[in-house]
Amino acid sequence: MASQRKTDLVLGSVRKLLRVGATPNVLNLLQKRHPVDIAEILRALNDHERRAAFEALAVQDPRLAMQALAEVGVDLGAALLATRSPADIVRLVQELPPDDAAALIDAMPVESADQVRDLMRGQGSAAVGDLLDHQEGTAGRIMNPKVFALPEEATAGEAVSALQQAGGVEMVFYLYVVDDRRHLVGVVSLRRLLLVPPETSLKRIMTADVISAGVDEDQEEVARNVSSYHLLAIPVVDDENKLVGSITVDDVIDVMKDVTTEEFQKLGGLEALDEPYISTPFGTLVKKRARWLVVLFLGELLTATAMGYFEKEIAKAVVLALFVPLVISSGGNSGSQAASLMIRALAVGEVTLRDWWRIMRREVLSGLALGTILGSVGFVRVTLWQEMFGTYGANWFLVALTVLFALVGVVTWGTIAGSMLPFVMKRLGADPATSSAPFVATLVDVTGLVIYFTVAAVILRGTLL
Amino acid sequence: MASQRKTDLVLGSVRKLLRVGATPNVLNLLQKRHPVDIAEILRALNDHERRAAFEALAVQDPRLAMQALAEVGVDLGAALLATRSPADIVRLVQELPPDDAAALIDAMPVESADQVRDLMRGQGSAAVGDLLDHQEGTAGRIMNPKVFALPEEATAGEAVSALQQAGGVEMVFYLYVVDDRRHLVGVVSLRRLLLVPPETSLKRIMTADVISAGVDEDQEEVARNVSSYHLLAIPVVDDENKLVGSITVDDVIDVMKDVTTEEFQKLGGLEALDEPYISTPFGTLVKKRARWLVVLFLGELLTATAMGYFEKEIAKAVVLALFVPLVISSGGNSGSQAASLMIRALAVGEVTLRDWWRIMRREVLSGLALGTILGSVGFVRVTLWQEMFGTYGANWFLVALTVLFALVGVVTWGTIAGSMLPFVMKRLGADPATSSAPFVATLVDVTGLVIYFTVAAVILRGTLL
Repeated sequence: MASQRKTDLVLGSVRKLLRVGATPNVLNLLQKRHPVDIAEILRALNDHERRAAFEALAVQDPRLAMQALAEVGVDLGAALLATRSPADIVRLVQELPPDDAAALIDAMPVESADQVRDLMRGQGSAAVGDLLDHQEGTAGRIMNPKVFALPEEATAGEAVSALQQAGGVEMVFYLYVVDDRRHLVGVVSLRRLLLVPPETSLKRIMTADVISAGVDEDQEEVARNVSSYHLLAIPVVDDENKLVGSITVDDVIDVMKDVTTEEFQKLGGLEALDEPYISTPFGTLVKKRARWLVVLFLGELLTATAMGYFEKEIAKAVVLALFVPLVISSGGNSGSQAASLMIRALAVGEVTLRDWWRIMRREVLSGLALGTILGSVGFVRVTLWQEMFGTYGANWFLVALTVLFALVGVVTWGTIAGSMLPFVMKRLGADPATSSAPFVATLVDVTGLVIYFTVAAVILRGTLL
Repeated sequence: MASQRKTDLVLGSVRKLLRVGATPNVLNLLQKRHPVDIAEILRALNDHERRAAFEALAVQDPRLAMQALAEVGVDLGAALLATRSPADIVRLVQELPPDDAAALIDAMPVESADQVRDLMRGQGSAAVGDLLDHQEGTAGRIMNPKVFALPEEATAGEAVSALQQAGGVEMVFYLYVVDDRRHLVGVVSLRRLLLVPPETSLKRIMTADVISAGVDEDQEEVARNVSSYHLLAIPVVDDENKLVGSITVDDVIDVMKDVTTEEFQKLGGLEALDEPYISTPFGTLVKKRARWLVVLFLGELLTATAMGYFEKEIAKAVVLALFVPLVISSGGNSGSQAASLMIRALAVGEVTLRDWWRIMRREVLSGLALGTILGSVGFVRVTLWQEMFGTYGANWFLVALTVLFALVGVVTWGTIAGSMLPFVMKRLGADPATSSAPFVATLVDVTGLVIYFTVAAVILRGTLL
């Protein structure tokens, strides 16, 4: 992208100009750019430079300054605003669509946020305040309450001139049609408006079967619908089907990104961070990681118990201990593969709870195949080392067999456990992504030890044991 | 969503009607629905029912039938088409935007796909054929070559009437402006067209700094740009900046979903599947999983070597073997957490390669904190069991200390390895997501054993060892 290369070039110049205090030149450089590019530059600057650049821009072109601020990310954005007076903040955030404004105010320190909200309500800027009444994670919280709607009796021509006078409405692609009590009754695309004679009534050209979102609906559900119906925006209605706002596809993309981030973190075996890694305070970061890590550790302590149970066998045949990490981690790895496959297949709706039995049969076969492959490699390894170094003594063949069969058993079990755990999680109402690689590995470690030592007991009885 | 509940209800009726052969009634039920909902019903039917329902729809309303087919997913869609004659397929796929048509043809068996392509080229439907000349994963492959463009001299009024006559162009929001050699010189939003007097020339109202995608650009890069600049569509240009197509936001969302799926699979420690799990043949599924699993296994074999190296110590103090799984898996778990955090932070651009040192310092501290927490829990566990069951004999305190310090060391090392591996991968030009939980765990297992036995050697020398 030409545009991004230019951003890199301009960053150096901005830095130099800020250092010598050449504010007008900085303005000159920034004002020609897209808010997204300005935000990229702001992010790359240090705190001091960033504040100077933003101040300069806010004086000259408050709208552009705020558009860039909205792109910087809410945490950094709120920090840039926080030192200003509440009245000043109110003036500036009104340059933004209410959903972006609400997100910014939300990210400010509680006290100033409250002051700003009170002031906005007092000034009749109820839109932002109303948004904040909705719960985080719902459609109501991310919608834009300024939505363009007209009555059914209006004509296409009237709609076009209303649109021309509107202004300030974020990205319009659809015109919503409401009855006299603001119930949502239809939708007309902007393009369709252009294609009909001006005197056509909206009622005649609207699509009556509107796909909408409830104001309390989960934002992930909203994102799924916008994406599967290929919408550019979705109207938001209250529980009486009255139009209260709309959500545009760019906000939906942001929701999708956040969801993916959360799933990644869960998949890695930690609680989802609410903020970006970089801006998460150290204490929070450790707490979010420690909680799951301790739970997993407590589970993993059972391996010490299981190993203790086989202590006599290990004492008799120390060679058994040598393969413990190999065997249990192979189970964990195959389980982690199966779990990731299932978590994603469930997330995109490719498989559902009903499919569990079909998956189970397939995964048992996969597990047996994978176990046989790994078991054979293990068998060859023991044989080779025996031939070359005589590592495993007279009973090496039985040791090799133990490794082979233990791997078949543990890998098969790991695959079954890994593939079924996401289904169990979903059935219990939890997020399937909670069945993370570490969780599956811990589960498989304990049972894997039991499988391994049981196989060993059967094969080595009378010789090593 | 009201619309989806209705879909579930209608599915039963469709099934019943198909069974008694009441095709007109099936048509009646389906024709009123959104293509996405019809696709959902088609997916839920069995092969036989699906074919019957699609045939009925294709005869009556080929456009709707094909729109639904495009939503069913390319594999199932191609299967539904494959039994028809090439001429018939050509007729039907022409109901679709070229990018969807190309994807469907791509998914058909090679022979019929070639016949269809030849036929289309012969009939002058070059658009689809041209798409297929571009490499998979590039902008050129997912773009729609039917793009709406006008010369700079055209007026807003002319643009509106051109738009009214266009038709067949997928979702228009932007009008692209080209010079007389079709170089892309500007863009005008549909809304802006409405706001100016009809005689205004496009040149006066267009934005000249157009964000565009190169035809050979990676589709992920395109998706990133569309999402960060909040675009609804992005024009695609060839290497002379000539306009050759455009990509709409809904296609970008599909790319984002596919990318997420791939990352999930890599994160789970397997090669990305090219098709959905369910439609991946068993052999391919096993192969894609086995390859990484064998690589990891070969790495994990080093644990057997490492354990062999400490065989004498284990024989002297079997108690050491008991904590091996606990210690190494704690390292793996903390490493997996750190890796997922970094992989995602790198993917969304929140951190870059340049930040590695800052992250490293932070993660060393996190690792020490987490290691101390787990180590303390481990210490308490050994102490408790000793008090209650006398499990660990006279030297229990030294064993407890060994577990404590080994955990601090291994967890810190796991955290460092896990957080830095994604940076190393990125530096080497590989996908950071390759540093999957299983990969990190394997890496940490071997070194974890060395750390554990070294700590043990220091603390237990002269007593147990």
